[in-house]
Amino acid sequence: MAALDVQALVFDVFGTVVDWRSSITDEGQAFGDRLGVSADWASFADAWRGRYQPSMEAVRSAKRAWAKLDDLHRESLVELLDEFSIHGIGETDIDHFNRAWHRLRPWPDSVPGLTRLRTRFPLATCSNGNVALLMNMARNAGLPWDAILGAEPARAYKPLPEVYLRTADFLGFEPQQVMLVAAHNDDLMSAAAQGLRTAFIARPHEYGPNQSIDLRAEHEFDYVASSMEDLADQLL
Amino acid sequence: MAALDVQALVFDVFGTVVDWRSSITDEGQAFGDRLGVSADWASFADAWRGRYQPSMEAVRSAKRAWAKLDDLHRESLVELLDEFSIHGIGETDIDHFNRAWHRLRPWPDSVPGLTRLRTRFPLATCSNGNVALLMNMARNAGLPWDAILGAEPARAYKPLPEVYLRTADFLGFEPQQVMLVAAHNDDLMSAAAQGLRTAFIARPHEYGPNQSIDLRAEHEFDYVASSMEDLADQLL
Repeated sequence: MAALDVQALVFDVFGTVVDWRSSITDEGQAFGDRLGVSADWASFADAWRGRYQPSMEAVRSAKRAWAKLDDLHRESLVELLDEFSIHGIGETDIDHFNRAWHRLRPWPDSVPGLTRLRTRFPLATCSNGNVALLMNMARNAGLPWDAILGAEPARAYKPLPEVYLRTADFLGFEPQQVMLVAAHNDDLMSAAAQGLRTAFIARPHEYGPNQSIDLRAEHEFDYVASSMEDLADQLL
Repeated sequence: MAALDVQALVFDVFGTVVDWRSSITDEGQAFGDRLGVSADWASFADAWRGRYQPSMEAVRSAKRAWAKLDDLHRESLVELLDEFSIHGIGETDIDHFNRAWHRLRPWPDSVPGLTRLRTRFPLATCSNGNVALLMNMARNAGLPWDAILGAEPARAYKPLPEVYLRTADFLGFEPQQVMLVAAHNDDLMSAAAQGLRTAFIARPHEYGPNQSIDLRAEHEFDYVASSMEDLADQLL
């Protein structure tokens, strides 16, 4: 790896840094307890995340104008409440539940691993989350980002090439000087196609106990790690 | 002030948070000592900063395409080296001197004041500096930004309205929920015209011993402070 000239690390966030499924499930449970409604909140979390790619695809394909992930999440939430036969929820409660994505919990190794990595590299997000979502999440969870970058500043959703290229450009580096850290094979392959370096971190429980995809690195990435701490061990 | 609903603070950086003039003067001295050239480096710093507004005006008026401040700074530097009869400097040395703007030193009250303010408010830049410049400065100086925003993500230079409005939008707030902190009356008036709240911090030595502008708040701002620590005293 001595030939690599990595100057900055950028991170996928949902699934790679934070555990969206258990966080949203717990937020759903709290929402239900408070408002007196019941549901299978893990299924609700899966269904909410299931609408993630289709909602962004409408923007990517220019079927609709640019919209922040907060707004896409909220549209999906309103549809899902209806689908789960949860009626009569007020706007303020819907807003609060929607902002559960601002309160996602990090995997246990994320903060210590990132804190170590930051001693050598600038760290930025390269996420489809909007700036406010990622910034509030970072303040809440203690994620030590040097910059909040990704879809909203680039005004394009991953895996469109502009997100990776504009993120590297914002950081002042060539694509090959920037390494994307992600738990998703396809995200890393899209970044590699734009010249970025790649580090896979296995998150075999991101999708719950029956996860069937992204259990392991399926391509030749520059680094393959079992956790953020393991990546720090390899890079520092 | 009880009626204000300030949810986030955004900051002008050059002059407000960091002391560009003494930093660039010292960097010029070090550059000169290393390369065996002499100049009045305080005058050089003033001349470099003097080209700041004209260089951005070419972008603001669309006489030229978008260009990062790093690139505008470098064009000005090359012209100034010639003007100061400093010849034969290599590209690497020019690049290093140009990145002196990434290494500007904070005023003594900036880091302690910002650190206190961050306990209550999200803090972001709202600067004409590009993301890499501001991020590297923050890492070097220990500035605790939650997000690096301003001209480059907004793709417009202050005082154009888009910079203030897009910065508030990135943060997920209405303009009136965001307060600009700046040492410059005109920057604050431009922000106020877009609905932002305003806090003036006096920096009476920004332009050196003979400063004649921005010695005091010249308009009705929401807050007027003598330092970042004083602003923290007033807001916390």
